[in-house]
Amino acid sequence: MNLQIDKSGRLKHFLSIDGLSEQILTDILNTGESFASVPEQSVKKVPLLRGKTIVNLFFEASTRTRTTFELAAKRLSADVLNINISTSAAVKGESLLDTLRNLEAMHVDMFVVRHCNSGAAHFVARHVQPHVSVINAGDGRHAHPTQAMLDMFTIRRHKPDFKKLRVAIVGDILHSRVARSQIMALNLLGAAEVRVVAPLSLLPTRLDSLGVHAYTNLQEGLRNVDVVIMLRLQKERMQNALLPSEHEYFQQYGLTEQKLSVAHPDAIVMHPGPINRGVEMDSRVADGPRSVVLQQVSHGIAIRMAVMSMAMRSQASEDEA
Amino acid sequence: MNLQIDKSGRLKHFLSIDGLSEQILTDILNTGESFASVPEQSVKKVPLLRGKTIVNLFFEASTRTRTTFELAAKRLSADVLNINISTSAAVKGESLLDTLRNLEAMHVDMFVVRHCNSGAAHFVARHVQPHVSVINAGDGRHAHPTQAMLDMFTIRRHKPDFKKLRVAIVGDILHSRVARSQIMALNLLGAAEVRVVAPLSLLPTRLDSLGVHAYTNLQEGLRNVDVVIMLRLQKERMQNALLPSEHEYFQQYGLTEQKLSVAHPDAIVMHPGPINRGVEMDSRVADGPRSVVLQQVSHGIAIRMAVMSMAMRSQASEDEA
Amino acid sequence: MNLQIDKSGRLKHFLSIDGLSEQILTDILNTGESFASVPEQSVKKVPLLRGKTIVNLFFEASTRTRTTFELAAKRLSADVLNINISTSAAVKGESLLDTLRNLEAMHVDMFVVRHCNSGAAHFVARHVQPHVSVINAGDGRHAHPTQAMLDMFTIRRHKPDFKKLRVAIVGDILHSRVARSQIMALNLLGAAEVRVVAPLSLLPTRLDSLGVHAYTNLQEGLRNVDVVIMLRLQKERMQNALLPSEHEYFQQYGLTEQKLSVAHPDAIVMHPGPINRGVEMDSRVADGPRSVVLQQVSHGIAIRMAVMSMAMRSQASEDEA
Repeated sequence: MNLQIDKSGRLKHFLSIDGLSEQILTDILNTGESFASVPEQSVKKVPLLRGKTIVNLFFEASTRTRTTFELAAKRLSADVLNINISTSAAVKGESLLDTLRNLEAMHVDMFVVRHCNSGAAHFVARHVQPHVSVINAGDGRHAHPTQAMLDMFTIRRHKPDFKKLRVAIVGDILHSRVARSQIMALNLLGAAEVRVVAPLSLLPTRLDSLGVHAYTNLQEGLRNVDVVIMLRLQKERMQNALLPSEHEYFQQYGLTEQKLSVAHPDAIVMHPGPINRGVEMDSRVADGPRSVVLQQVSHGIAIRMAVMSMAMRSQASEDEA
Repeated sequence: MNLQIDKSGRLKHFLSIDGLSEQILTDILNTGESFASVPEQSVKKVPLLRGKTIVNLFFEASTRTRTTFELAAKRLSADVLNINISTSAAVKGESLLDTLRNLEAMHVDMFVVRHCNSGAAHFVARHVQPHVSVINAGDGRHAHPTQAMLDMFTIRRHKPDFKKLRVAIVGDILHSRVARSQIMALNLLGAAEVRVVAPLSLLPTRLDSLGVHAYTNLQEGLRNVDVVIMLRLQKERMQNALLPSEHEYFQQYGLTEQKLSVAHPDAIVMHPGPINRGVEMDSRVADGPRSVVLQQVSHGIAIRMAVMSMAMRSQASEDEA
Repeated sequence: MNLQIDKSGRLKHFLSIDGLSEQILTDILNTGESFASVPEQSVKKVPLLRGKTIVNLFFEASTRTRTTFELAAKRLSADVLNINISTSAAVKGESLLDTLRNLEAMHVDMFVVRHCNSGAAHFVARHVQPHVSVINAGDGRHAHPTQAMLDMFTIRRHKPDFKKLRVAIVGDILHSRVARSQIMALNLLGAAEVRVVAPLSLLPTRLDSLGVHAYTNLQEGLRNVDVVIMLRLQKERMQNALLPSEHEYFQQYGLTEQKLSVAHPDAIVMHPGPINRGVEMDSRVADGPRSVVLQQVSHGIAIRMAVMSMAMRSQASEDEA
């Protein structure tokens, strides 16, 4: 039984790439295309979710991610409530459940959940009532599926055939929920090769089960790739002695135009943002012609509108049944 | 002269149960009924307050209560501004007045006021201009009238005839604005008997003027009642030496299925939330078949929509006059 | 080349009074008049900016100013996002640029910027994409042009002919972005005389270039003026030893009815708020018949609606071209 899919096969919750079919991912990308032109209209909103109530339930602060979901919801004409709960106050399962039960009783239609614990979004989805949808906006080290899908959307706009793609994901693979979701989405969409590039201390131990090729040398990892995805480096990795200094990291794993020269001549460069300039990449790459970083941000709104509207369509079809 | 009622006898401000007639309370309950079905519509909002500006003016933090008022206002299609002011910055009467005058000058239609000082909502209502309504969202130990009315609404849905009701309110009666408002509403609506149950240190001294029977023994207080209302216990009561430990409190005043067995077999259990599980009641009662705690939350939206729309109707009729 | 004006001569950004023509200022005032009656309608909003996204980008906390812009935007039917960024996190030019680029990529139409650094709004306007407008909501000691224009609007409603006006601005001229913008607006609109009144320590050194007459004596400065504008005194001036005590300041520069008696009998008294009662003026003046302080607040909404709608009209006309 798949929590994310309703009995008609539609997307009901969006919690992780794991458990979804290639068809659902392609549906999300195609629905995203239909929303990508909304901001070019003079009235940049559609009435699809008018009268629906969406709660941004953030147990982990993120102005950036919250903003994209809030904008996506408003452009769908939904009413949005932002609720920030410090995990110190509500980290226990029981009080999280009470919070959910209370908001449900207010007839909320959708929760967008961000939480520092892996599995939190699944926990919420398992416990909400049938008429409520849950979107995972990042849970611990587990998944960040809307980020992965906006990345797939951005890739597809530049490189329409996933079957031909070589993709390198560079950085802190071990701790990155973004990387986990990207790897699953790329494999599901049939990418020819997914590589991960990191120092040994930031590589997961069981690499084979992930379906990736691992590299500790950036130059080797980038050779002939069509897409380079740089991950954001969390500063606490340095403090935890998993890494030497920022400077040394940049020397070995920071992206420069020179290092990029071994990639395919048409390769694009991606980053989930915000970029630590001079750590993950230098500004010439970040602002250069191959960077699609700002397109990722734009596409993030379209993809979030897509999954929100698809989840609500699932609810509507269940109501009819 | 009654501050809360306009010259046509309509509700203009909603500050306390005190001073209102049984007819007005019944009007609020009936108007609440008309809004209770709004969340079942596919577009769960009505255009009644479109273009009106409502300010949530919270001098005491409460995400929970603020959320219910914000949702109620949005479902009435009003524009909502949330303004949180720490009382340290604005506790003086003069600067509160300046804050009010400024917001009035921005053509605000309604203030929802929460304040740690008893009487704050009345103060605001006495000083606002004629075209502005004030809703009390809790002032000190004085009143929390929307909470009391959502409780009456919940009771009436289960027990339509107040004249036959025996109700027990259990917990910190002395410090509870919720209890004060509930007692007044129950007496005004003609409840057969209102009991309060608490340790002596948490009972008010002048009980006769309240129109209640007092009990210090929970079992005696619960005998044959139709409604049990558990109050939330503020942790600082323990620190203030008014109470022994949480554990001992639960032993004597915490609600369990066994203790509940002396109540009427159809008795319902209420709590304003959030519940301290294992202090005011155990989870089997909180989540059990007699608990209507989550219905209270749902009804809170309907009742807040009711008082907001009634207050605005008063303004509209005064404009015509 | 004037950053604020598009190639058809329309207002595109509103950054400072400096660089604008008398005609543009008069257009703003006249457009403000058309919005001043919106709050008297039963539905107090207009659909002019429906589907537009406005971001309040506040690097300096100000509930008051943020509220007026949020209300103005909502009454124009725009979607509003409030983003507060502590300058400690984002003070560097590079990360400010990254923040801008990201929000632009979300298809934001307008930034309302408040920042503690002079020139921040110009910086933003120089770097945004062509389809984005910028409104300065106060930058360092430089400018606060919407405040100045709501003041001009308030003056014109009482004294329609600027050519005949004598205006005194009293208080901390040296550090006040409000005063700088007021002086420029008054001179551009042709005021007969602009005076500044302050202790020497709070007067700028190059007064002649400002087009004002300076006074250190309040009584002399107020003689025969038609408009008295009191500035807010920042408490830190006292701590910085630029001023003796609040009490002594009030003795010399605080406005009382008695001191006001030398002004023109019809003189009006203004203050940008919030007033430090007993420091800049006593309550009898603040609440007296000559005070137009609350009218300033009301007009603030109309003027902000005016500049927002004018900037958006500039964008629309550029799209057509």
